[in-house]
Amino acid sequence: MKTIPLILMGCGGVGSHLLQHIVSSRSLHSSQGLCLRVVGIGDSKSLVVVDDLLNKGFDDSFLLELCRLKHGGESLSKLGDLGQCQVFVHPESEGKILEIASQLGKKTGLAFVDCTASSDTIVVLKQVVDLGCCVVMANKKPLTSTMGDFEKLLTYPRRIRHESTVGAGLPVISSLNRIISSGDPVNRIIGSLSGTLGYVMSEVEDGKPLSQVVRAAKSLGYTEPDPRDDLGGMDVARKALILARILGRRINMDSIQIESLYPKEMGPDVMTDDDFLSCGLLLLDKDIQERVEKAASNGNVLRYVCVIEGPRCEVGIQELPKNSALGRLRGSDNVLEVYTRCYSNQPLVIQGAGAGNDTTAAGVLADIVDIQDLFP
Amino acid sequence: MKTIPLILMGCGGVGSHLLQHIVSSRSLHSSQGLCLRVVGIGDSKSLVVVDDLLNKGFDDSFLLELCRLKHGGESLSKLGDLGQCQVFVHPESEGKILEIASQLGKKTGLAFVDCTASSDTIVVLKQVVDLGCCVVMANKKPLTSTMGDFEKLLTYPRRIRHESTVGAGLPVISSLNRIISSGDPVNRIIGSLSGTLGYVMSEVEDGKPLSQVVRAAKSLGYTEPDPRDDLGGMDVARKALILARILGRRINMDSIQIESLYPKEMGPDVMTDDDFLSCGLLLLDKDIQERVEKAASNGNVLRYVCVIEGPRCEVGIQELPKNSALGRLRGSDNVLEVYTRCYSNQPLVIQGAGAGNDTTAAGVLADIVDIQDLFP
Repeated sequence: MKTIPLILMGCGGVGSHLLQHIVSSRSLHSSQGLCLRVVGIGDSKSLVVVDDLLNKGFDDSFLLELCRLKHGGESLSKLGDLGQCQVFVHPESEGKILEIASQLGKKTGLAFVDCTASSDTIVVLKQVVDLGCCVVMANKKPLTSTMGDFEKLLTYPRRIRHESTVGAGLPVISSLNRIISSGDPVNRIIGSLSGTLGYVMSEVEDGKPLSQVVRAAKSLGYTEPDPRDDLGGMDVARKALILARILGRRINMDSIQIESLYPKEMGPDVMTDDDFLSCGLLLLDKDIQERVEKAASNGNVLRYVCVIEGPRCEVGIQELPKNSALGRLRGSDNVLEVYTRCYSNQPLVIQGAGAGNDTTAAGVLADIVDIQDLFP
Repeated sequence: MKTIPLILMGCGGVGSHLLQHIVSSRSLHSSQGLCLRVVGIGDSKSLVVVDDLLNKGFDDSFLLELCRLKHGGESLSKLGDLGQCQVFVHPESEGKILEIASQLGKKTGLAFVDCTASSDTIVVLKQVVDLGCCVVMANKKPLTSTMGDFEKLLTYPRRIRHESTVGAGLPVISSLNRIISSGDPVNRIIGSLSGTLGYVMSEVEDGKPLSQVVRAAKSLGYTEPDPRDDLGGMDVARKALILARILGRRINMDSIQIESLYPKEMGPDVMTDDDFLSCGLLLLDKDIQERVEKAASNGNVLRYVCVIEGPRCEVGIQELPKNSALGRLRGSDNVLEVYTRCYSNQPLVIQGAGAGNDTTAAGVLADIVDIQDLFP
């Protein structure tokens, strides 16, 4: 039986689903000779560490109880009451993580799993990489920080997995890495990597006003609490930057041309989200409607996409053929089209749900299983 | 620098492309700290083995000269003249392979790469698995032999890769393995896994007679020399069996319901391929045309697909919604739709060129790079 000890940072939505997936896949993994041993779990305030670090992981009942507590809005520090663990609070928790990484990194290997959405993990991630740990990320921030941080994290590329940073669990990163390692040159990537903006663009295509579509998307739970977080394009730009860097482009966020669907005058520092939803948005309807009609008159549709081609890395609205994979996209699915030497006339297309805690956590778990050959 | 010693069986189309990809990716792999060392190359008659087995691989110039010779229809035995190798002829070659596998399997590891299309490799594959070697296959035959052979080959599942057995280089097997290892249950797979039959079905959808479409496909080089090899569905059934077995179904070829596009009375043992093309095919036009029209009257289209769902594993014509990924398929692309817990309403879709020596060899090379963590 091969054992992978894990420390999980972030046990809210994605992290909590990951723990549940680990528990429910226990017998499957066991039949494949694999045991995932969760030895530490952290949130922004605390870290709980299993008592017998070298030999044990948390019980499944403990992990499920933790998910229940976090779901109820409780803090990890409550878990001390359950026994079998020690609780460390910030800032002692950082030191404890490094102590564990240094201890297990050499002896048994350790996978450090980042399911937060925070930049706060970057410092510790770079340190655990130095200590020989593997890193699995759903968190986009560490890979979209400076080029120096990116290269540091990728010092040992085989030890880093981050499928769920782009398109949730969709096999985007793994497929792209396969193409790259086979020497097939990637000429162009174009993708719709935001379920929210995919939904918005396919709805306005049907003639609905942007304001109405965004409000509907918000009430369906498709958007962030402030929809401008989606409409500004920053989340898509982060994914584009990760893809571009995987392709070898040494660029930063400020090299990416980002088209926001709202102007600066409607930004969060100028008007409240309520004002934006009730007034600001209405002023944007006419322009989008005209663009949709102009595209339609060319037999095309509008999609909010990222485009990576040569030195170009852009995020914004593009007019695309109606009968392409992107043009046919409806609803909140993500789509990626990859053009290479092998996929030159017709692209390689990967499509499916690109958001949600369940599928994001599934992508993280597949990454963890995939690094097993690095463990003794 | 990590070194993977390789023995390649089959150096015609796919194998020859693989050797060229290995040579042209040399500097890329080197920059990633990886060296692919080809120590042996076999065809159906001979095996050439590098002189200094433990320390050297064939020169790139030797590999390219070998590709040139094979392309010109020459036999491997010619290569003895080039020096740096020994040539073994059948049946001594089998013994030599096992000797190398036993020697390198323990010391440095060895990847055994099967780019043949023959059942003849099964015996030796099972033996090299026992000797601790990794196996990479483009060859479907070993995985579609008996369940006993399949399980024997998969004794150490991490050491076996076979992306290019289904959909050429399309990331089908790797994506499916990711889904499985994340514990996401696969409820249904439906796919168009033959470029030839994909082309045929989308052309008859446009109202063209089957006979005309098949003749056009043959003259475009889309079909086997005898188009019945494609129209019979056996190649698709092999791919379906591999997918079903990956999902854990313990079934054999005879459990798969296969619909042939021509009746037994037009089989190769009854009429010549010329007679089939000039006379037999014409008799099939009306039936297909009626089925196309019936489907169209339901707003559907016909596709030749494999369907795996519960205990069901079928290969044949299905009536499908025009606006599904499969229904929209045009030309010779392959498409796979996978329905799981995470991809329940909308499937995960993987689409692109699913045939050709270049992309098939690229898939094999990505597999080889992917097993590097198993080597010391």
